[in-house]
Amino acid sequence: MTGSTVESVPDTTSDAVNLIVEAAAAAAKPWAARDLTDRAMALRAIADRLDAYAAELIPLAMRETQLAEPRLAGELRRTTFQLRLFAQTVLDGDFLGVRIDTADSEWPMGAPRPDLRRMNIGLGPVVNFAASNFPFAFSVAGGDTAAALAAGCPVIVKASPGHPMLSQAVGRLVDEALAECVAPSGTFGLVHGRDAGVQALTHPAVTAAAFTGSTAGGRALFDLASRRPVPIPFYGELGSINPVFVTAQAATSRAAEIAAGLLTAISASAGQLCTKPGLVALPEGAPVFDELTALIHTSPVPTGELLNEAIADGFARAVEQVRTHPGVRVLAGGGTDEALLLGTTARTVLSDPDALLHEMFGPATLLVSYRDTDELLELARSVGGQLTVSVFGEDTDDTARALIAAAVDAAGRVLWNNWPTGLSVTYAQQHGGPYPATTAPSTTSVGTASISRFLRPVVYQSVPEELLPLALRTDNPLSLPRSVNGARAR
Amino acid sequence: MTGSTVESVPDTTSDAVNLIVEAAAAAAKPWAARDLTDRAMALRAIADRLDAYAAELIPLAMRETQLAEPRLAGELRRTTFQLRLFAQTVLDGDFLGVRIDTADSEWPMGAPRPDLRRMNIGLGPVVNFAASNFPFAFSVAGGDTAAALAAGCPVIVKASPGHPMLSQAVGRLVDEALAECVAPSGTFGLVHGRDAGVQALTHPAVTAAAFTGSTAGGRALFDLASRRPVPIPFYGELGSINPVFVTAQAATSRAAEIAAGLLTAISASAGQLCTKPGLVALPEGAPVFDELTALIHTSPVPTGELLNEAIADGFARAVEQVRTHPGVRVLAGGGTDEALLLGTTARTVLSDPDALLHEMFGPATLLVSYRDTDELLELARSVGGQLTVSVFGEDTDDTARALIAAAVDAAGRVLWNNWPTGLSVTYAQQHGGPYPATTAPSTTSVGTASISRFLRPVVYQSVPEELLPLALRTDNPLSLPRSVNGARAR
Repeated sequence: MTGSTVESVPDTTSDAVNLIVEAAAAAAKPWAARDLTDRAMALRAIADRLDAYAAELIPLAMRETQLAEPRLAGELRRTTFQLRLFAQTVLDGDFLGVRIDTADSEWPMGAPRPDLRRMNIGLGPVVNFAASNFPFAFSVAGGDTAAALAAGCPVIVKASPGHPMLSQAVGRLVDEALAECVAPSGTFGLVHGRDAGVQALTHPAVTAAAFTGSTAGGRALFDLASRRPVPIPFYGELGSINPVFVTAQAATSRAAEIAAGLLTAISASAGQLCTKPGLVALPEGAPVFDELTALIHTSPVPTGELLNEAIADGFARAVEQVRTHPGVRVLAGGGTDEALLLGTTARTVLSDPDALLHEMFGPATLLVSYRDTDELLELARSVGGQLTVSVFGEDTDDTARALIAAAVDAAGRVLWNNWPTGLSVTYAQQHGGPYPATTAPSTTSVGTASISRFLRPVVYQSVPEELLPLALRTDNPLSLPRSVNGARAR
Repeated sequence: MTGSTVESVPDTTSDAVNLIVEAAAAAAKPWAARDLTDRAMALRAIADRLDAYAAELIPLAMRETQLAEPRLAGELRRTTFQLRLFAQTVLDGDFLGVRIDTADSEWPMGAPRPDLRRMNIGLGPVVNFAASNFPFAFSVAGGDTAAALAAGCPVIVKASPGHPMLSQAVGRLVDEALAECVAPSGTFGLVHGRDAGVQALTHPAVTAAAFTGSTAGGRALFDLASRRPVPIPFYGELGSINPVFVTAQAATSRAAEIAAGLLTAISASAGQLCTKPGLVALPEGAPVFDELTALIHTSPVPTGELLNEAIADGFARAVEQVRTHPGVRVLAGGGTDEALLLGTTARTVLSDPDALLHEMFGPATLLVSYRDTDELLELARSVGGQLTVSVFGEDTDDTARALIAAAVDAAGRVLWNNWPTGLSVTYAQQHGGPYPATTAPSTTSVGTASISRFLRPVVYQSVPEELLPLALRTDNPLSLPRSVNGARAR
């Protein structure tokens, strides 16, 4: 099912990991101390260099990941856009969260209020466990790296074993860009191998980690991070089924559109997206079922090869677990490199949620038929933590409000008549959700708000102007957005 | 050393804990759905009721905690102020973090941007482990309870064993105030006993926990929270030594002032403050030493009794560990209910930091003499995670900048010529810091920003106006502060 030709890169030795982490620790203070304009320039320099080398990077990515050229070109564009958006985020300065309380002898707490000035600073060295399914956007120079560098933190990337040569190539470009901007040596590092990742994660100098990948792998690393003598925040984006709930009205009035959209959503990137819909609830006997069958019979949905053997094996195992469940049957597809539609009833899922609410990372989904609105709502309220929940309905739908309420309880992103697979990088984006979608439901791993994962606040009490950082001075020399005595000001 | 008369309250039974947590779970959605004005009104109703019953609560607190009437009256005032400040925070609406990205077909990421609208919602039921040393401000109706209720979360307080009757009395008033405001039953609950606290923390319906107390106790609970099948954020405020660094210039020019301030800081509330300075670095042979000795000899510093036997035992053990170290000697004090000054050298501390950088929760401190600026800076860079670091210096001090930089690395609050024991409740306050000061260095447990611990963001994608919450509608009917397409707006 996969014919990737991944050259191997030797695992980073224990001594080398130590040197890399120590260099990151040494870089932490000088990198954090650089002007915001310098930080922004470095992010842009990385983006520029990636763009300049696109013609070399994309073929390398194609060879290692089996992903198609247009998809990779789009992903690289998204990645460099993301780096530039973080550059702008740094310059905007809102992420510094500046709050100033001037001294107030009449503060009604019962004691005078001293002068207090608060801002966010970088946490320190961050380990970023790269994902295999987005070799650019969630890898070496992806969102976590961009956010950590923007926050003023050095980054050590643990390369995905799925694209080691591409990781090396991107890492070299990041190094060159940072050197060009005279960033401190050690601001960026790259390690290969599982043991190297664990060693970096548990090194005393590391202060936070980010991860995108499987629930089992992510949980194991979360446990290591939490059990350190000094525990550190572990921002893991793990598994999600991304349920889709289609109301009876929508299933009737838009059967062809929904069927076509669903097939695209489960087969794009061979279904290897953390937002691929893995469960679609439809009313019993809905025309969507017929449309789907017709679509698949007229032209089987090609999916392309899976990323690598490990992904293919994991997908096969997950499919097997769901497919062999006594209440599940194959509806269509499932041939080599072809999307698979499984079917069951809402009652079956509700009676065995542990077995059937199970991520299949690849081009497969479980169509779940419900008998009535009550069953639909019961299912919607039972899906557990998710990255996304989508509702397809009509504006006049009676159940729309209740479905959206259930979606908000479960997920970080709630969609209306939209498929969850497109994930825009924006100011308002939220890519996260209750466990097991993530290990840190108050955070996002995509969008400008993701920078806050790598920051901590410090307040200066009664510190004289000349000893304050520029960001906190009364005359606001950096023109930062800030709140003064509880009110927004600039 | 302690003569507290604590009547016992039976531990909450396992069945009762389950009922309380289930009631909190049932209250979560209706409480979160209440208008912001309702939430604010409920917080004010709690404050009003506490104020109205001050004449009953304060004597009860005196009996259970040994704290003096003026201290408790001030603490109650601080507590009701805090509740009202959170009411204002709710009405201000900034905590909702509203971000709106309108649909943009030209979004330069390479794909059209859908309409995305993000806001924070309450995480769900929160367990608040009350502290013993602030029977009002960090207990049943204290900061964590106020912040969680303000965030829209039901709260289950695990009462401190140090003041169970007061906890019952305050709990009753909170219940009455919430009932008066028609808050859903279960919005507030109170449990007693260690097992009850653990049971609540590990109950599947609980979504977050807050804790103020010892490093050992807090770490044990953090581990339980992290090892749950569904891990939850655990916001623990644990131990801190709150080092104070006095420059040679300041130690010479302000010896009397610094000596008097230090004695007040270590003896106030019998030293049972998480911000009590436990290490004070002074230049060898500084006049401050003579001033201190003179002050103590002319009038021994009375401290009052400790809160309870458990605190007294813990203090005795911690003092013993430091006092019996071969490099440490008793400088003054240490009689019954009297402040204790221990002394050692910076070299000794640097050579055995694990033994000597050790919190003594009570009226004691370790005076550390340093030989020169290099030694002072080395010590300042070695203290580990702290809630506070204070620097006493002159504006013209050469070392001021380096000391403040070291303080920022170590602590959440950095003070200049201020003692850390006063902790103002404000918009900019930061009470937190790197481990072991807290288990979550990106958060604060005091000040209005503490509300963010109990929130998670949700983004609505392409959801029609009539299905959006009021907070996200285009016409901004709640007049919330928000950012639109990356720019601040209202």
